[in-house]
Amino acid sequence: VNKVDALNTAFNLKNVAIVGVAPGEAGFNTGRLFLSAIVEYGFPGRIYPVHPDGGEVLGLKVYPSISDIPEAVDYVISCIRAPLIPRLIRECSEARAKVLCLFTAGFSETGISSNQELESQIGELARETGVRVIGPNCMGIFSPRARFSYAADFPKETGRAGLICQSGGNTLYIIRAAGARGITFGKAISYGNGSDIDETDLLGYFHQDSEIDMVAMYIEGVRDGSRFRRALKELAVEKPLVVVKGGRTPKGVSAVASHTASLAGSDELWEQVLKHAGAIQVDTLDELVDMLVALSLMSPPGEKRVVSLGMGGGAGVLAADEWDRAGFAQPPLPEEIAEEFRTALGNPAGTSMNNPIDVPHFGLGNPNFYEALKSLMSWDGFDFLAFHLPLRGMMLTMSVGDMVISMETDTLMNLRQETTKPMVGVIHYLANAESWQYAAKYAERLQKAGIPVFYSVASTANAINRLIGYHNYPGYTADGSSG
Amino acid sequence: VNKVDALNTAFNLKNVAIVGVAPGEAGFNTGRLFLSAIVEYGFPGRIYPVHPDGGEVLGLKVYPSISDIPEAVDYVISCIRAPLIPRLIRECSEARAKVLCLFTAGFSETGISSNQELESQIGELARETGVRVIGPNCMGIFSPRARFSYAADFPKETGRAGLICQSGGNTLYIIRAAGARGITFGKAISYGNGSDIDETDLLGYFHQDSEIDMVAMYIEGVRDGSRFRRALKELAVEKPLVVVKGGRTPKGVSAVASHTASLAGSDELWEQVLKHAGAIQVDTLDELVDMLVALSLMSPPGEKRVVSLGMGGGAGVLAADEWDRAGFAQPPLPEEIAEEFRTALGNPAGTSMNNPIDVPHFGLGNPNFYEALKSLMSWDGFDFLAFHLPLRGMMLTMSVGDMVISMETDTLMNLRQETTKPMVGVIHYLANAESWQYAAKYAERLQKAGIPVFYSVASTANAINRLIGYHNYPGYTADGSSG
Repeated sequence: VNKVDALNTAFNLKNVAIVGVAPGEAGFNTGRLFLSAIVEYGFPGRIYPVHPDGGEVLGLKVYPSISDIPEAVDYVISCIRAPLIPRLIRECSEARAKVLCLFTAGFSETGISSNQELESQIGELARETGVRVIGPNCMGIFSPRARFSYAADFPKETGRAGLICQSGGNTLYIIRAAGARGITFGKAISYGNGSDIDETDLLGYFHQDSEIDMVAMYIEGVRDGSRFRRALKELAVEKPLVVVKGGRTPKGVSAVASHTASLAGSDELWEQVLKHAGAIQVDTLDELVDMLVALSLMSPPGEKRVVSLGMGGGAGVLAADEWDRAGFAQPPLPEEIAEEFRTALGNPAGTSMNNPIDVPHFGLGNPNFYEALKSLMSWDGFDFLAFHLPLRGMMLTMSVGDMVISMETDTLMNLRQETTKPMVGVIHYLANAESWQYAAKYAERLQKAGIPVFYSVASTANAINRLIGYHNYPGYTADGSSG
Repeated sequence: VNKVDALNTAFNLKNVAIVGVAPGEAGFNTGRLFLSAIVEYGFPGRIYPVHPDGGEVLGLKVYPSISDIPEAVDYVISCIRAPLIPRLIRECSEARAKVLCLFTAGFSETGISSNQELESQIGELARETGVRVIGPNCMGIFSPRARFSYAADFPKETGRAGLICQSGGNTLYIIRAAGARGITFGKAISYGNGSDIDETDLLGYFHQDSEIDMVAMYIEGVRDGSRFRRALKELAVEKPLVVVKGGRTPKGVSAVASHTASLAGSDELWEQVLKHAGAIQVDTLDELVDMLVALSLMSPPGEKRVVSLGMGGGAGVLAADEWDRAGFAQPPLPEEIAEEFRTALGNPAGTSMNNPIDVPHFGLGNPNFYEALKSLMSWDGFDFLAFHLPLRGMMLTMSVGDMVISMETDTLMNLRQETTKPMVGVIHYLANAESWQYAAKYAERLQKAGIPVFYSVASTANAINRLIGYHNYPGYTADGSSG
């Protein structure tokens, strides 16, 4: 099979085999972690644990080998040792198994030449037999549409983002962190050393995939630069592509060598290539998630004029500094609007009613304040509203939480209905589990209403700057055609 | 009374009055928030709510005025309106109340000249009557030794850090965020507009206070520059002083004017003044807390050579990039030590055993791995060990949490006993409430063993860079004398 058909099969898998599942009910190894996650997540297809000892595990029959399974398997996960892989590929070929995912590591990333040769051999065997290989040294595919996951806690919803990730751990984090921010993936793949299906194949795959609207990528290196650049550009011209490049410093580059054995390339070259292609380069995984949030939930503001509204004078001062430092203008409100805010709240002492607008406790629940907010939103002197909530910088503890959450979010959600002007929420001053729990509830409501939420003013400004930059990129046209 | 005596009285208060407590059991206002927090935190002294209507609240008698209280009050909190304050000061004076904290706002920060005059009048009355005033527009004092707090959830332990903070909200956040990181304050004060007791008085107070070893400060502006600079230097020469300056950009400066009516001054001048004094300037409140953690829990490494140990290949690559970017060297391990790690874990595939050292799941529980760690710690080719734990980037979900926490932290805590080399923990890849909860348990154990914990590699590197800079400051001498 060709790689596109193989990926189609894998992302729509109807059955799965896991080779190297520890036998016995008390057994524990990575194969068992895969197996129990697949079961717990709710995969509706047939599941075939494989181990020479046979027996039963989690109530499932264990098959001694791939060839003992009574049907052709769509997707095989290998957790056995590297030297056994060539034989496994041949067995898969004979049993007409279609795609092999190698969690198995111990190849070129070890720096040992015999292991490097083994990896080349695997690539060749894949091409020869048509059993397409994902990995080695990876987690493989996540497909919520097929209800298939190797982590039981991954989101159940199918989103329209795609993920191409060279690191298994980073894949786990990106999917979980994005899920907590209301961003779900339709298809995600952790591809490790990429001995057969590589980064370029995956860019091409998501380029032609009408179920995927935007792509996130973590990459450590490429095998074929010119093919990669072409695929990068083809994708980025049509769909937003956000990229974290791992291994940008000399020490990062050497860590890459022992992680996925990729040639990391120079940081300058990568920046140029990504910029030229119209991809959005970010520095950290959290910035990657921020960028997906911005792309999914907000239209780019026309100019960089923000009105900031929130609780706490000191938090407002630091927020004003952050917006200013990031190049955003903070225009003073027209006097009649400032006056409307002041009057709404009975001229409260100790709160600024200009920009930033300092809302006292429970201010957002006031109907006159809401009218003032509506007047503000129709003022054409600014481009977006930033609401900031310094959670652990308020006198109230979390005990009054749920009431405040619905009152405040209702106000913002109603406002969202009445205007097309972009709005963002900044929930900050967190620092403990209780406040993250509160923040999650708050964020969930806002996200569902189409208001993106970020966790610091600096990261919000950063994401919006990149969003504006992306939409102003000369190669970008609103209809998605190549500019 | 002079200001030092007044502050001594306030921080050791035996009784408190709150003026402006909403009457009736169902009443709600800021006075009630103060009152219930003071009760809930467990203040053992006498508590006198004050309101003209009298009656009872939370089982406490409400006094119509300060003069009706049967004893001289150490500390009076005012939540009534600004125009009533001059009369309140006179009443306090007659009733021999000692210190008045004005939560009351509506003074110079409003920009209205009559309110500015009112504030000057209050400063004069304080000097005239000897009733020393904290504020207006502030939360006042927090004194765990006296079991006195205006937030019920503040830490109960008395620490050796002092806090001087011009913003009430920022005070709430700093105390809570530091508490979650194992740093507790001995005395903290939110002083707002500083009409009587000001920033310079407070620097002087903490300078002479033998219970305070280091000072954190959030400041928006000063009234008397040359007095301030002298006090700053006197303190910073003897005790570490970490400062966030709010209002550094033009918009931040104008936000300061409507917050505490301070003259913010130019950012360049502030940087010079702080640097010259030997204070440690940081940019955000989280950096301030990071710095307190570094100062409290680690000795500065001799040079900037880190060995990084943790879970996840991709996380290790990004960590290597971050350390490199922050100017830290990551020396390769001597071959015999690398070999010891590899042998300990049975030459695991897919994990790097050099620097970074990639620990597989459960690796830290292995006794041979522990022996390898001991060999590592005695190698003189590096200056500190960084353990990083990418919480949500691991295949295991949190369900196995408690077992893993004790196994892993025990290993690190035992190691901490066997060496004097600095060690830091980086708990990252968080992003939801469950992982913050897990992180908190993990961090608490490490902190108690004297291992500082941070929440990203970048912020760890930043704090250590500042710690090294502080100890290399020409004015600093290890015995605390002026250099």
